[in-house]
Formats: sequence, structure tokens, C-alpha cells
Amino acid sequence: MTESYSIGVDLGGTNLRIAAYAAGTDFLETVYLPTRLDAGRDRVVRDMCEAIAALSKKNYGGRRLAGVGVGTPGPLELPAGVLRNPPNLHGWDGFQLKSAIESTLGREIEIESDGNLAALAEQKLGAGKTQGIDSLCMLTLGTGVGNGLILDGKIWCGFTGMGGEGGHIIVEPHDGAPCGCGGSGCLEQYASALAVVRLAGELMGTEAPTSSHEVAMLAEEGNKQAIQVFRKVGWSLAIGLTSLINTLNLPLNLIGGGVSEAWDLFAPVMFEELRRRSYVYRLTEPGMREPSRVEPNKTYVQLAELGSTAGLLGACLLPLQAKTTQSESKENTFVA
Amino acid sequence: MTESYSIGVDLGGTNLRIAAYAAGTDFLETVYLPTRLDAGRDRVVRDMCEAIAALSKKNYGGRRLAGVGVGTPGPLELPAGVLRNPPNLHGWDGFQLKSAIESTLGREIEIESDGNLAALAEQKLGAGKTQGIDSLCMLTLGTGVGNGLILDGKIWCGFTGMGGEGGHIIVEPHDGAPCGCGGSGCLEQYASALAVVRLAGELMGTEAPTSSHEVAMLAEEGNKQAIQVFRKVGWSLAIGLTSLINTLNLPLNLIGGGVSEAWDLFAPVMFEELRRRSYVYRLTEPGMREPSRVEPNKTYVQLAELGSTAGLLGACLLPLQAKTTQSESKENTFVA
Repeated sequence: MTESYSIGVDLGGTNLRIAAYAAGTDFLETVYLPTRLDAGRDRVVRDMCEAIAALSKKNYGGRRLAGVGVGTPGPLELPAGVLRNPPNLHGWDGFQLKSAIESTLGREIEIESDGNLAALAEQKLGAGKTQGIDSLCMLTLGTGVGNGLILDGKIWCGFTGMGGEGGHIIVEPHDGAPCGCGGSGCLEQYASALAVVRLAGELMGTEAPTSSHEVAMLAEEGNKQAIQVFRKVGWSLAIGLTSLINTLNLPLNLIGGGVSEAWDLFAPVMFEELRRRSYVYRLTEPGMREPSRVEPNKTYVQLAELGSTAGLLGACLLPLQAKTTQSESKENTFVA
Repeated sequence: MTESYSIGVDLGGTNLRIAAYAAGTDFLETVYLPTRLDAGRDRVVRDMCEAIAALSKKNYGGRRLAGVGVGTPGPLELPAGVLRNPPNLHGWDGFQLKSAIESTLGREIEIESDGNLAALAEQKLGAGKTQGIDSLCMLTLGTGVGNGLILDGKIWCGFTGMGGEGGHIIVEPHDGAPCGCGGSGCLEQYASALAVVRLAGELMGTEAPTSSHEVAMLAEEGNKQAIQVFRKVGWSLAIGLTSLINTLNLPLNLIGGGVSEAWDLFAPVMFEELRRRSYVYRLTEPGMREPSRVEPNKTYVQLAELGSTAGLLGACLLPLQAKTTQSESKENTFVA
């Protein structure tokens, strides 16, 4: 049997990353490009497809190309692969991204929102693999707050592909900060990198740093306002996680993305509030947060393992998964 | 092939209901008893088992008993079937309900939390059947706020059986009313029958009615405080539904239970807030809320169809379902 490989794409608002991947080998090759949004969406699609075509001509030691997976910022309507008002790809509303790529490339692709793909990678190759767990929730604290749900080893993308938007759980229902989604008070407005900078500005005025990393450094140096910012991040994550854990009761809840580097600054408040707020968490809280051995039937909230390539890795994994979706896989085994 | 029937039990804090059921025929027989909590949990289990035994001796025209399903207030730890601090069954914390029933009855049973069973019944025989939809979320506005999730035709009960506790999504994170779950500000504190009475008391003082039904009647007569109570119910449901819809993107979200009789009083505010808050809902809002024909790819929020026997019906359906659970059904079809 010929061994196979896949090609994955992580389309971001800033970076366009393409990789070839084979199971058990990590990336075979990676291509990192800027996302030339200013040159128009057709240019971005052409840049992407040229890189995919280049990688698809190689066979990496006699391997067969199993397929191409693409991750994009959401909301993404599935199965059509149409973008719906994506906050990080301005002007792409209604863009038929899947068919645009397929017609440029001349082959079918698979497409998913980036939050779901990062979660898939963590389940198959990151924290889920480490713990032997096949259902998890992931929150990616980046420019926004991405979210992905893996249930029984498969992406749960909802009936129109718009599931996994847990970044828009409401944590401040009264006078909450306006959100790019059109609502207000969403988790994204209190736990993303942009939120950290905004919250710092509210507390520190013009003295405030302009990146979440700098706010974190100030907090580590003992700056009280900066510390307060990350307490708010932790509190907000607890409100969001309470909803997720009480509703879904998943064994693993991962926090990833750039802001998660400030874990030690927000995690204590997050765990304190989560224990107080969520009785499902309280009933299943592990004895130790970072166990040497994973206890069964406990709810873990912990850092994601794969870092910034989780989304790209998930895109590579997508074509290697069994080809069933929620709606296709409905086995109506009910006898009544 | 011999036709079969099942026996279902709906164990509530007040009523203990047992029924025999065959697919396509509705209930064959029902037994309604009081739940004698004062006489102790063993007495309640014996009452239940005597009724089950009586129904299992009948064969309803040559039918074979396929199994016994029991619904209980949660949280219920599965697969063991142990109750964990159930707010509506005081003193039953840690009770091994499943094994207590099985040893009294002398046969295996299946057990689930009542919110999940009501949702199962709605999916198989209620609104889900009407609309041909196999994934839904149900909120039951009773004494508390029950919740159940059906994903791809199966109950999603989480990894320890404690999923579907959406009644404890936080809708008032600051100074929220204390909740029986140990947290505060939960949806249950703003949308249950007890919440309606409490909110009415806060606004109307000693003049306030002592049942949610009476508060609804006052509101229908134009009483401003009573109207305000149901506006709060609608607002709170919108905050909770925003979390559920943005995270899970399910096509059908049902509201049932006694308080749902006041639909016309809370639904307008609920829809207004939901449209403002949830972009997944906004992107998938149906043209008409009560369509003659269901539009595809739209998110419906509507009244449940089965009324107060949904939980009992769900208990009867449980033994007739395919015998797979989340963890048993994991087909690791992933090739990487």
C-alpha cells in the first residue's frame, strides 16, 4: 500500500501558511506567505493555490496526495464553504471560498473554520492524544477568541457549519463591550489579545502598552492595573467555561493562542471562579491540575499543547479523516 | 417477529409516573403515584419497582418486554447511575439509584436525567419528528430549568453523564441570585417557575402571587410588574440561548415546561435580544417564526410539542434505542 500525504492551509488575516504532512512524520514541508488582503481576495486565493500546486507536484518519496484541507476564519457556512461576515477578513462576506479555491486549483478540497481545526489537531496529536481523550473543547485566545468542539473524535461544526463560536458566549450581559459579531459583552471582548490591550487602556490610559504581550510583562513586574486586566481575563474565561462545561460535560477544555502565554496571570482567578460557578466542574475537579497521571472522570482545563501551528496541523489532518459529517453519518438506528 | 414494548419511569420530586409503551401506539398503560420522599428513598424505589413489576407481567397482546428506562432529576453520574447532590431530591446525594432499582427489580435498567429524556422524546416523537430534525436542544422551564441535548439522534450526556445542564448557564454574572447548584446568576434563577415567583415578589412585595401561573394571569391582565417579570424571563432565555446557539449551532431549540405556557409574554423580548446578541441566530433566522413549511438551514426557537409527558415518553423510548453510548460508539476511523 502506497503511503499518503496531505496538504493543509491556514488562512489568517495576516499570515497564509501552507504545509505538506504525512501521518507520523510531522510537516514534510511548510510555506509561509503574507495574506495579501490589500491585493484582493482573488489574489489571496491564487497565492494559496500556487503554493498548494507546488506541494502537490512533489511526492515526498513515493507518497500519494490524499487531499487538501483549508482552514479559514469563520463564520463559515457549510457544506457550501461560504464566508459570512468574517470579522478578520473584511470585504469577504458572501465569498464562496471553497468553490473559488476548487476552480482555481482544479480539484476538490475540504474546508473548515480555523478554531475547529486547531481543536482537531489537539485531539488527534496534542493534549487529547496525550490523555487518550476523544472529546474536547478548545478556546484559542488570539486576536479574537476562537473555539472548536471535538465530540467523539469528530469536529462538531453544527448544522450550518457555524458551531464552535464559543468566543461569543456572553460574559457581560449589561453594558458589555461592543463585539465585532454585532452583539456585546462576548467572551472575545474580555479574553482576546485585542481585549487585553483595550482593558489595559481603560485602566492605564495613554500609558497603556499596545500589545497583550507587553501588558503581560507589566503584570509580571507587579503593575497593579496590568494584573487587574488578567484577573478580568480569568474571570471571563470562567463564566464562558461554566456554560461550556455545564452544557457539554467534556473531559478536556484547552486554552491556546497568544494570550494563553499569560496562563499564570489569569489561571488562578479562572479556577477559583470556575469552582464557585460550575457544579459540574466542582463535582469532577481533579485532585491536581497538572497530574503526572490523568485521573479518569475528571474535568481538565489546561493549556493547549501544539502552539501556533495547531490550526495548520488540523488543516492537514482534515483530508486524512474518515469522510463523514454529522448529517451524512446519521445512522437512524432507532427502532420505534 | 414478536412485537415489543417498554416500561418507562419519570421520577420527580412530587410525582412518580410509570408507563408501558409500544412504538406507534402511545402509552399502553400509565400509573401515577406520589413520590413519597418523606418515607425515604428505599420506599420510593420499592413503589417504583412494584409498579414496574406489575406492568412487566402484562404482555399487552403478546408483546415482549424490551427493557425498562428510568428518568431522574440530575445531576446523575453515568454509567454508574449515582445521584450527585440533586437539588430536587434532598438527601439523595451519592445514592446509587441505578443499582438500587436493579437489585429490587431483579433486572437491568437504563437510566438518564429527565431533561435529556424530554429532549429525546421531542426529537423522536415531537417537534424533531415534525420537522425531520435529528439534533436539538431543549430547555424545560419547570420548578428548575432542565436541559437536554440530542446530537445526531442520540442523547449527549457528556463524559460523566452530567451534560445538558444548560439551566446553569450564567446569565447574571454580577450579583446574580444564589442558585441551588451552589453558583449564582444561573438561567434557572431567572426562567424557572420558582424564579418567576421570586422575581414577582421582588417587584410586588407581599402582594405577589405564589405561583408562576398566577403571575402570568396578572401579566395578561396588564399588571406592569408581572409583565416586567416575563420580560426578564425572555431576556434571560436569550442570554442562555445565545451561548447554546453560538456554540452548538443546532437547528431546533425547544422551550417546554410549565412556564412556557407564558410564551406570548416572554417570547417577544427573547427573540429581540437573541437577534441582537447571537450572530449565528441572526445569520440563520427563519423568515417566519411559525412557518407552515420548515425552511432548511434556519435556526428555530419554538415551543416544545409533547407537554408534560415528554420526560415519561423519553424514559419509555430509552430501552428502544440502539444500545450505544458516546464512549462505546467511538469508531476511531481516523487514519493518521
